[in-house]
Amino acid sequence: MSPTGAPIDGFYSVIPAGGIGSRLWPLSRADAPKFLHDLTGSGQTLLKDTWDRLAPLSGPSRIMVVTGRAHRAAVEDQLPDLSDPNVVLESEPRDSSAAIGLAAAILVRREPDVIVGSFAADHVIRDARGFRRAVQEGVAAARAGFIATIGITPTEPAIGFGYIHCAGPIAIDGAPNAVAANSFVEKPDLATAERYLADGDYLWNGGMFIARADVLLRQIGESDPDLLAGIERLADAWDTPARGAVVDKEWPRLRKIAIDYTVAEPAAAAGRLVVIPGDFEWDDVGDFASIAKLHAGGRKSDLAILGENARVLADRSTGIVISQSDRMISLVGVTDIVVVDTPDALLVTTTSNAQRVKSVVDALKLSGRDDVL
Amino acid sequence: MSPTGAPIDGFYSVIPAGGIGSRLWPLSRADAPKFLHDLTGSGQTLLKDTWDRLAPLSGPSRIMVVTGRAHRAAVEDQLPDLSDPNVVLESEPRDSSAAIGLAAAILVRREPDVIVGSFAADHVIRDARGFRRAVQEGVAAARAGFIATIGITPTEPAIGFGYIHCAGPIAIDGAPNAVAANSFVEKPDLATAERYLADGDYLWNGGMFIARADVLLRQIGESDPDLLAGIERLADAWDTPARGAVVDKEWPRLRKIAIDYTVAEPAAAAGRLVVIPGDFEWDDVGDFASIAKLHAGGRKSDLAILGENARVLADRSTGIVISQSDRMISLVGVTDIVVVDTPDALLVTTTSNAQRVKSVVDALKLSGRDDVL
Repeated sequence: MSPTGAPIDGFYSVIPAGGIGSRLWPLSRADAPKFLHDLTGSGQTLLKDTWDRLAPLSGPSRIMVVTGRAHRAAVEDQLPDLSDPNVVLESEPRDSSAAIGLAAAILVRREPDVIVGSFAADHVIRDARGFRRAVQEGVAAARAGFIATIGITPTEPAIGFGYIHCAGPIAIDGAPNAVAANSFVEKPDLATAERYLADGDYLWNGGMFIARADVLLRQIGESDPDLLAGIERLADAWDTPARGAVVDKEWPRLRKIAIDYTVAEPAAAAGRLVVIPGDFEWDDVGDFASIAKLHAGGRKSDLAILGENARVLADRSTGIVISQSDRMISLVGVTDIVVVDTPDALLVTTTSNAQRVKSVVDALKLSGRDDVL
Repeated sequence: MSPTGAPIDGFYSVIPAGGIGSRLWPLSRADAPKFLHDLTGSGQTLLKDTWDRLAPLSGPSRIMVVTGRAHRAAVEDQLPDLSDPNVVLESEPRDSSAAIGLAAAILVRREPDVIVGSFAADHVIRDARGFRRAVQEGVAAARAGFIATIGITPTEPAIGFGYIHCAGPIAIDGAPNAVAANSFVEKPDLATAERYLADGDYLWNGGMFIARADVLLRQIGESDPDLLAGIERLADAWDTPARGAVVDKEWPRLRKIAIDYTVAEPAAAAGRLVVIPGDFEWDDVGDFASIAKLHAGGRKSDLAILGENARVLADRSTGIVISQSDRMISLVGVTDIVVVDTPDALLVTTTSNAQRVKSVVDALKLSGRDDVL
């Protein structure tokens, strides 16, 4: 371990930059997904924030990004230090097992003992030291042969996150805080979330996985041999002239399935998954309520305003305004409001309805109004 | 009186088309005032609705419109039958005493016994027969030397309207329903409005005045001799080549004062004002709550949508959306909401805050953001 901040030995970061973030429509779109937005007011995109967080841990030359072909230019524009061999382009979205599995399979061929850590491109983490400490423990657990995940200590009974039910401590050299995982549980209702919080054995599932690449692939193969076989054929061809033809043939056939189901849950069931508790501020910025909370610093009386050229005039109003225009936006007497103003679409909802924004996107899809999606 | 629908003898309609309608910002603007909008879904502007209501009563050649120079083209576009001698242009707004007084003074010179009726350009009246009946009684009262106003029978304890406190019946030939006016009272609070409604002696002040032109002018002169003198100088010059020079000199000096204070209140105090109860649907469309109510037909569960090219997708939402764009507007779980979407300004409020929209306009003025006013 390197307390000084030098890169962690043998460690490679993987950033799957995929999901659109439907609950953040009309801000997030097919051509402007969540990771390409500055949702924290940091002055840069979530993707760049993620890169900046990982670069000290793996070194900037050891970060692989898996993203859609359509986003290549935007991603490379955001990440000037991203090297060409570390760009993995998807011809179409095939979910996280395919994306992370392929990255692991490519990397293991270049470096057999590599330890990969997968971190979403669009999450917010505010404590770099706490994050580093957790990743270091995760890498130590990975060296010991485990699949490690970072579980976030809950600060409230959140209903928008999945949880990990933890068991007792596991003795792993270099991972003093590691505990065994009992199981993964889906987003709970409020009463259940309150019980989880009181119980203390439940951590938020931050979707961060750290493992030896070969261990990760073996787990995918145990869950779905066909999926692994496809990934292996892609990886075999990746650093050869055959890449294009093999991608065209194999990639669209890969099973679309989240890594939670091919890796996290079966590894937990098999006793191979350990959890490193992460005691830092984390958010998956899953909806506008979450953005409002990030900006209000927890104060309900605030109105958060995002947007470089935002012109907002508010009278007795709280919530969040996200402006992508220079239009004058006036709010009068609206509380916990969410207003998202983009050139071709406007959303008005409340923070308590934020999770339901996805229903709008579904309705727009059904009615064929793809022009605003 | 003419029950058949022929024009009323000697009657002339005056439409002061002035006020911007600040409570309807950002729909109503300096360059697009309330009377130039279709707020009822009738398919035409409030001004044209007003014209269509008055044309059968006075004949289309006997309607005078007083409006700002800036709105001349729009007004003439809306009212193709408006004859040139019936267009009175204000170089700047001087309130209703000046506007209606000048119209009366011009008309009395052309036709000494003329009876004028003044009707706002931007009110909604839905019962043409009931309206005609009330105007006919008002004209009869005017012939008898009174100043008549039409008072609307309240249907709810409205706090957005002024009221007329009525006394007992007055015997006037041709005006069987006429009652004497005790006094005019300003917009009440809810408790007072409820008392008015229960009492039965209070009618809404619809701002409609009918009188012989000479009687109306005499009343203005009693209240403010200087104002009348200015109006007379303007009227003397009006149908002569001197009009331009005299307008430039006199108009800006006229006292800005509402006709309520120069005519209605002093006439009521002097026993010269009679009220014709109008038992028809009337609204001054003063704010967005009023528009929402007009469109919802009284149902609270509705979402009213105005705008030719409105694209609205609403999920469990009520209130009103007014769209001046073809942007996709999505509402999720917002109740009694008001969303007004214009090319350069957006308003989000609720129906219960509709009266406070004026505060936004005031704030925009104070901060010098006249570009959106």
